[in-house]
Amino acid sequence: MTDVARLAGVSVKTVSRVVNDEPGVHPDTASQVLAAIDSLGFRRHIGASNLRRGRSTGTVGLVLEDVSNPFYSGLTRAVEEVARSHGCQVLTGSSDADPTREHQLAAEFCARRVDGLIVVPTGDQHGYLAPEQHAGTPIVCADRPPRGLTADTVLVDNVGGARAAVAHLAAHGHRRIAFLGDSSHIFTAGERLRGFREGCALAGIELPEHLIQMAAPTEASIGDALRAVLDGPSPATALFTGNNRATVHALRALHERDHRPALVGFDDFELADLLRPAVTVIAHDPAELGRAAAERLFARMRGDSTPAKQVVLPVRLVPRGSGEVST
Amino acid sequence: MTDVARLAGVSVKTVSRVVNDEPGVHPDTASQVLAAIDSLGFRRHIGASNLRRGRSTGTVGLVLEDVSNPFYSGLTRAVEEVARSHGCQVLTGSSDADPTREHQLAAEFCARRVDGLIVVPTGDQHGYLAPEQHAGTPIVCADRPPRGLTADTVLVDNVGGARAAVAHLAAHGHRRIAFLGDSSHIFTAGERLRGFREGCALAGIELPEHLIQMAAPTEASIGDALRAVLDGPSPATALFTGNNRATVHALRALHERDHRPALVGFDDFELADLLRPAVTVIAHDPAELGRAAAERLFARMRGDSTPAKQVVLPVRLVPRGSGEVST
Repeated sequence: MTDVARLAGVSVKTVSRVVNDEPGVHPDTASQVLAAIDSLGFRRHIGASNLRRGRSTGTVGLVLEDVSNPFYSGLTRAVEEVARSHGCQVLTGSSDADPTREHQLAAEFCARRVDGLIVVPTGDQHGYLAPEQHAGTPIVCADRPPRGLTADTVLVDNVGGARAAVAHLAAHGHRRIAFLGDSSHIFTAGERLRGFREGCALAGIELPEHLIQMAAPTEASIGDALRAVLDGPSPATALFTGNNRATVHALRALHERDHRPALVGFDDFELADLLRPAVTVIAHDPAELGRAAAERLFARMRGDSTPAKQVVLPVRLVPRGSGEVST
Repeated sequence: MTDVARLAGVSVKTVSRVVNDEPGVHPDTASQVLAAIDSLGFRRHIGASNLRRGRSTGTVGLVLEDVSNPFYSGLTRAVEEVARSHGCQVLTGSSDADPTREHQLAAEFCARRVDGLIVVPTGDQHGYLAPEQHAGTPIVCADRPPRGLTADTVLVDNVGGARAAVAHLAAHGHRRIAFLGDSSHIFTAGERLRGFREGCALAGIELPEHLIQMAAPTEASIGDALRAVLDGPSPATALFTGNNRATVHALRALHERDHRPALVGFDDFELADLLRPAVTVIAHDPAELGRAAAERLFARMRGDSTPAKQVVLPVRLVPRGSGEVST
């Protein structure tokens, strides 16, 4: 410690404060001390010192569906930024919407003693998280609420967004609107379907059930869904796609067709404005969702013990052309 | 342990083997034991048990530029998959191409005793990683080589890709080709510029220096660059954009113009095939890059002590239209 103090130009007491993460050290001074430690080749070991004292590991866990999906990578970056501002690092893992894999990831993160956990819940039972929560690990759910667990949750307005999409298409004269949603066991898919049905009811549209297609959106499943809603009797004149993956697969499949239905997609996505027609979307901000979830988590980690809250972030319809015309 | 053994229907010795990560337990049996531990509300603590024995924390660190950039999110997902197959979890952090931030992230990850570290190096000095490396933490560099450090490195063929882009544009009659590259201190930007120059030389093109624009690609910087190469005397008839961010910003800026130059972009990106004209790219697979880097890392973690290797992954030109015509 004496060498570090000499190199950093501070007292041994200050070095001790920095190493033990005690208050009362200016951030610039702390940086100098850490730089001195680095340059002398010492290696800090957060695990050992904190475990000795039963303290923080300086990590939070983030269990999401697929980090390579732009929705989740935007959310991840925002969580990372909030964590960074609290001196924390982020463990991330993709569940692929597989409840078993979600459970494994959460367990692995907790076994590494994360200070807190953000989960985008899949499946329909999250009671397995209760022991961790009772043991003092704050848990926040993002994008979807947990089932069988009480936890802070940050959502977007799925029902309102879906209703707005239908209202937009109905206002442009469409009466046969198809919904291409995700697997119906996924909360957001169910909520968007509910908003879709409500929107249709409000517009006085009676909905043939074959126009509702719920499946995990892959190139194949969306191709099947489009054939079902466009190639049978009374085909859809407009589509509402339930998330960015469904929209992208639908756009690619529609590209080959002579006549394209009108389309509104849930989730904005890069280049939506440069396609022809540009794609009308129900937009929200994945970064804002990640930020809000992470800020709830850090509030809990700092001791906030108020009852669990549910926050619903607004969405907005961005008209760009595809929802206004068939081409 | 007795309770766990009874619930899982195995011997106490087997539970002990699983908990202590000893060999000789079938993966299915191990899963049963872990499930029993979970359902009884016990909490595994990897940190404590491993630290006691000076063993693995079961985590690897990944320092990249920006996880919300699709190139890096695809790479991240692949690293996660390889890590998962080895029972490891991934700490991720975005450096924003800021060498100080990269250094901080690497230091934070090492302070959490990651078993290995994958870095997409920015800046021009990575000797700061040497103490960690000497202390036994394997380090692999992805996308760019380190400077002042010897480490396994996985790259893509930047020079070859840039040469191919120029050859393609030259074959379509272009003689005034502009390069919109990233900041010249970034390795990949420098290599792609080198390939661009070599490609021009091979095609007998003399290059006016104002057609080379190197800057971190933002909406503003790409707008400036386009004005410089398109609105002056002897404007470019074709563009080679240096990465997916430059390409996307350029496409958006070009959208407003009556006459659009031909364009080839380095990095493939989602929807490139659905734009009109579809965008010709130099494609490679970020997932393959992530996978190769992670596999090198785990080979090192398993004891591979052969000299450091450099692997260069191939790229390929995908002609889609934008490189063939001006519109």
